[in-house]
Amino acid sequence: MKKFINDPSMVEEQMIQGMVKAHPQHLRKLDCGNVVVRAVKKEGKVAIISGGGSGHEPAHGGYVGTGMLDAAVAGAVFTSPTPDQIYEAIKAVATDAGVLMVVKNYTGDVMNFEMAAEMAADMDEIEVRQVVTNDDVAVKDSLYTVGRRGVAGTVFVHKIAGALAETGASLDQVQEMAQRVIDNVRTMGAAIAPCTVPAAGTPGFTLAEDEMEVGIGIHGEPGTHRETMRTADETAGMLLEQILGDLDYSGREVAVMINGAGATPLMELYIINNHVADVLAAKGVRVYRTFVGEYMTSLEMQGFSISLLRLDDEMKALLDAPADTPAWR
Amino acid sequence: MKKFINDPSMVEEQMIQGMVKAHPQHLRKLDCGNVVVRAVKKEGKVAIISGGGSGHEPAHGGYVGTGMLDAAVAGAVFTSPTPDQIYEAIKAVATDAGVLMVVKNYTGDVMNFEMAAEMAADMDEIEVRQVVTNDDVAVKDSLYTVGRRGVAGTVFVHKIAGALAETGASLDQVQEMAQRVIDNVRTMGAAIAPCTVPAAGTPGFTLAEDEMEVGIGIHGEPGTHRETMRTADETAGMLLEQILGDLDYSGREVAVMINGAGATPLMELYIINNHVADVLAAKGVRVYRTFVGEYMTSLEMQGFSISLLRLDDEMKALLDAPADTPAWR
Repeated sequence: MKKFINDPSMVEEQMIQGMVKAHPQHLRKLDCGNVVVRAVKKEGKVAIISGGGSGHEPAHGGYVGTGMLDAAVAGAVFTSPTPDQIYEAIKAVATDAGVLMVVKNYTGDVMNFEMAAEMAADMDEIEVRQVVTNDDVAVKDSLYTVGRRGVAGTVFVHKIAGALAETGASLDQVQEMAQRVIDNVRTMGAAIAPCTVPAAGTPGFTLAEDEMEVGIGIHGEPGTHRETMRTADETAGMLLEQILGDLDYSGREVAVMINGAGATPLMELYIINNHVADVLAAKGVRVYRTFVGEYMTSLEMQGFSISLLRLDDEMKALLDAPADTPAWR
Repeated sequence: MKKFINDPSMVEEQMIQGMVKAHPQHLRKLDCGNVVVRAVKKEGKVAIISGGGSGHEPAHGGYVGTGMLDAAVAGAVFTSPTPDQIYEAIKAVATDAGVLMVVKNYTGDVMNFEMAAEMAADMDEIEVRQVVTNDDVAVKDSLYTVGRRGVAGTVFVHKIAGALAETGASLDQVQEMAQRVIDNVRTMGAAIAPCTVPAAGTPGFTLAEDEMEVGIGIHGEPGTHRETMRTADETAGMLLEQILGDLDYSGREVAVMINGAGATPLMELYIINNHVADVLAAKGVRVYRTFVGEYMTSLEMQGFSISLLRLDDEMKALLDAPADTPAWR
């Protein structure tokens, strides 16, 4: 295992410390575990909390700041944060307007976030609601999930619901908007090389020189199936076909995200976008905005995902609204 | 060679096409070769042009836009653009205020940018000046360079000189500021895995499981020497020592850039920053701002560099000035 780390058992904490030291104008770390909150708490708005295992950087700490999240909770690599951690995050950012948790659909995450919400309701009378993202069209039930997994499309929920919360909208309104994004976003990914969880020391799977994993999640697990390597255009086309077959995008305006899994050069992501843009244009799907880069990674996995979000005018305005966080531009 | 590409001979053009399709509000591609310019030309300001080989994405096309560059010229992977390409870029963005070219110190780049400037002066009476970045403290003369190499610190030149040009400053003033950044920035990097140039098909070097290259450039070449792997803190400390020994940073305010080479997870870059911030604090070097991410890459090389820029009040204001480009936030 070749990594720039010090001690596999310290990667999460040292990463969070390094993140807060890099972005003190945006972030503050709670004393209790790996939780980051906004440097300056904003009262009178719905507080939005997200999180999950570490290893998805810049998600989720990179999205804490004006116009997006109020707190991010980081578990061990690819492992749900504990209910206690999430509970501390809720207490730190809760306002009278309530709290919305944006949770990716993995069994551990959903369970632990729910448990934390119950603790906050019982002990502190804080109103906490939850939306669960499930944008991955690759699988239904898996080893990690009941129902579809929440993957890169989650970042659109952070941005759009976060922008609405910043305006002082009610908990009902922010929850409805978060759910509207979830209902309109789909994602699918592929990988040509795995990643290595520091505490494990060996890759999550192995691939032959001419093989790729299709339908990957974001926890280093294998995809739904293995195929022979194809060109970038063929691979992107195949993923896009799954997405377009799952939801009716015809005639709609969309936001596109070409998300790098961690070790895929931006050059390749742009080559992929070149084809995605052409296919969407040919099918009459109108691209409103495109995001190319690393938004929700899996350590150093070599792979990518395509996300397509159907937009309406309100969502477009919220997507374009200013945000000031370490990772969103 | 496992990559998401279509044809090694098409990677540069398909990448540029995909970039322009992703960012039509920022970028326009010239018809003649891989040159991107601002979607809307701004008259009455010094035009700033940069570029070099492809494979450094988001550099340099990602920095074209308000407050930074006016054009970026992309050669083949790790290969200088041709004088003709650069000449077309000059003609496309030149204004009455003149043109400044920001060139990284590699022999081919310096020669071809100079030749293009002469063509523009002779044939079109355009005033074109050049600054040459040379921030890499690892080497003096090398196979690729006479004098030090220009690496990630170049991005600070784009940002700070770009912000000054945007105010309508004169060519003298913009050139002086670009040179001031060059004089005050130093960089050094290390890598634990090489990258593969698509047209070559094999990695630029090989490393044993316990080895790293120290003093890497950004063209996939080996570093100045090879060492046994150490911890992230030890490696960062060693690079920092070289930088701090090369220029007097004591008591100064600095901007820090922890730049990923392409395949190094953000988690590791933040772990590195955690130590860099501690060392600088202990030495009384005051960190004004920190940038962690991929700013100047080498395809999928697994490595990083540290850049330190000494700041004065004018440079701080220009560093903080708004910019609107695909890659700078």
